[in-house]
Amino acid sequence: MTLSRPTWKRLIRFTPPNSTAVLYGEPVVGDDSDVGRLADAGRLTARVVEPGPQGVLGEGTCVTDRTESVDKLLAPIGPADVIEFKCIGLNYRKHIIEAGRSLPPFPSLFIKPGTAHAEYGQPVPIPKCAQEGEADYEGELCVVIGRDAKDVSKEDALSYVAGYTAGDDVSTRKWQRLKERAGGVPQWCFSKGFDNFAPLGPVLVSPELIANPAALRLKTSVNGELRQDTSVADLVFDVPTIISFLSQGTTLRRGTVIMTGTPGGVGCAGPEEKWRPLKDGDEVQVWVEGVGTLRHGITYE
Amino acid sequence: MTLSRPTWKRLIRFTPPNSTAVLYGEPVVGDDSDVGRLADAGRLTARVVEPGPQGVLGEGTCVTDRTESVDKLLAPIGPADVIEFKCIGLNYRKHIIEAGRSLPPFPSLFIKPGTAHAEYGQPVPIPKCAQEGEADYEGELCVVIGRDAKDVSKEDALSYVAGYTAGDDVSTRKWQRLKERAGGVPQWCFSKGFDNFAPLGPVLVSPELIANPAALRLKTSVNGELRQDTSVADLVFDVPTIISFLSQGTTLRRGTVIMTGTPGGVGCAGPEEKWRPLKDGDEVQVWVEGVGTLRHGITYE
Repeated sequence: MTLSRPTWKRLIRFTPPNSTAVLYGEPVVGDDSDVGRLADAGRLTARVVEPGPQGVLGEGTCVTDRTESVDKLLAPIGPADVIEFKCIGLNYRKHIIEAGRSLPPFPSLFIKPGTAHAEYGQPVPIPKCAQEGEADYEGELCVVIGRDAKDVSKEDALSYVAGYTAGDDVSTRKWQRLKERAGGVPQWCFSKGFDNFAPLGPVLVSPELIANPAALRLKTSVNGELRQDTSVADLVFDVPTIISFLSQGTTLRRGTVIMTGTPGGVGCAGPEEKWRPLKDGDEVQVWVEGVGTLRHGITYE
Repeated sequence: MTLSRPTWKRLIRFTPPNSTAVLYGEPVVGDDSDVGRLADAGRLTARVVEPGPQGVLGEGTCVTDRTESVDKLLAPIGPADVIEFKCIGLNYRKHIIEAGRSLPPFPSLFIKPGTAHAEYGQPVPIPKCAQEGEADYEGELCVVIGRDAKDVSKEDALSYVAGYTAGDDVSTRKWQRLKERAGGVPQWCFSKGFDNFAPLGPVLVSPELIANPAALRLKTSVNGELRQDTSVADLVFDVPTIISFLSQGTTLRRGTVIMTGTPGGVGCAGPEEKWRPLKDGDEVQVWVEGVGTLRHGITYE
């Protein structure tokens, strides 16, 4: 099959100064630049990317010669381009052991709805029903599907990837786990599916620049304190395995975001008295090697 | 808030004879007619419904004077109008007891993706990875959301309903439950989320005709043999409670389909040696009082 990839290598979404227009762009940066840090410092420019007829992930998308300054960085794909978030629940060996579980035989899937989309830098609202000390982060490597995938092999899986970014699978642990809230089953879809519970960014990086996602490193910090630090190679199920598995009997549509799982070091593991939940005003940063730093706040509604 | 409801009382989707055009319509039937049976007998006509600018569930949708014969009945809303399926896992007292569980303190949510949409009468494909005697039905009352709902009260909940229909939450029990497949957690999203695993129909009935969904009766049969027979009043969480709960902190978008849960009598309950899985060529019928009979086949891919 001939594969026509978009012409961008890195994709951002942003508003230019003194404008409310939302543009896509290819940031003008070196390979080692952190697009999030540069945007926060007001030092990022981009060549404007024109989406094709099927959206920015589809064919016909092209990088133009027009250059704009980035005033406000957004998530690299917009809410209209995100179908849903397919999330893997238990995937890093250390996190599974931390949760007192055994390694799963297959990837454990749950879904966040498209309404969980959140912009880069947007404070994630913790809803009134989940403010009793249970809000938590899960820094994750995220994979955006670029063309519909069904029944694909592990060998072909990476050819369906539009790009990689960083994400936070924001979670509320009492709804997820406590028997008096969740009953006897883990309530992943409700406890992690609130509006804006899936911040993404700072940039979507093409597989042309990331040939092997397992070689990346992932770090999460809260208010500057390092909490998660792992190699993606610690994944029980790597990216090709996840894509192949999720596509069995099921069409992974263009615009599906796969959140690949979180490593050890979440705030609310183990007995409740040891939890360190996210508080109103906290700032979470998720750094993925080769992608840069996603930053977002926390605000109690 | 002024609520502008669409002008239809019952909504179907269909193709007329000698045409591939997909139309919406208001079936020309009496209150006690079974739209599914009439369509199967080739005796259904409908007044054509013109969708408004935001689709058939939005404002401006109107019933025209043009009448057409129904050649092929489809699901009452199309795949482009379905956002996703928000499904309640354990909700009928008898089914919960059958599964050996205690009553949950809150509704148990899982999500089927929009790709689970299936047409009325369409054989549901059982994928190769789930053909070892585990395919199962779950007849359910389904609720289609007609306008975006967030943080709504139980009292206001029914005003967000576009209509009611019947559905089958098709399931694969080994992926859902067996430790060697699912690991230690119920795998609801994967085991129930395959393509076309959510047939809907035969008709979407306005709340103007169904004031109290709890008063309805629900029956499921396989190849003519009655398997499920219950009153919707046996729901642990009724329709207003489900809508209110799911909308806490989360926007239920227009076009969300809520599958409210299944009663006792599924094919694969209890120990595996007692399972009666769906076989290639089986026919499932789900009848909901006031809605009529949804019919679909099963085909092993």
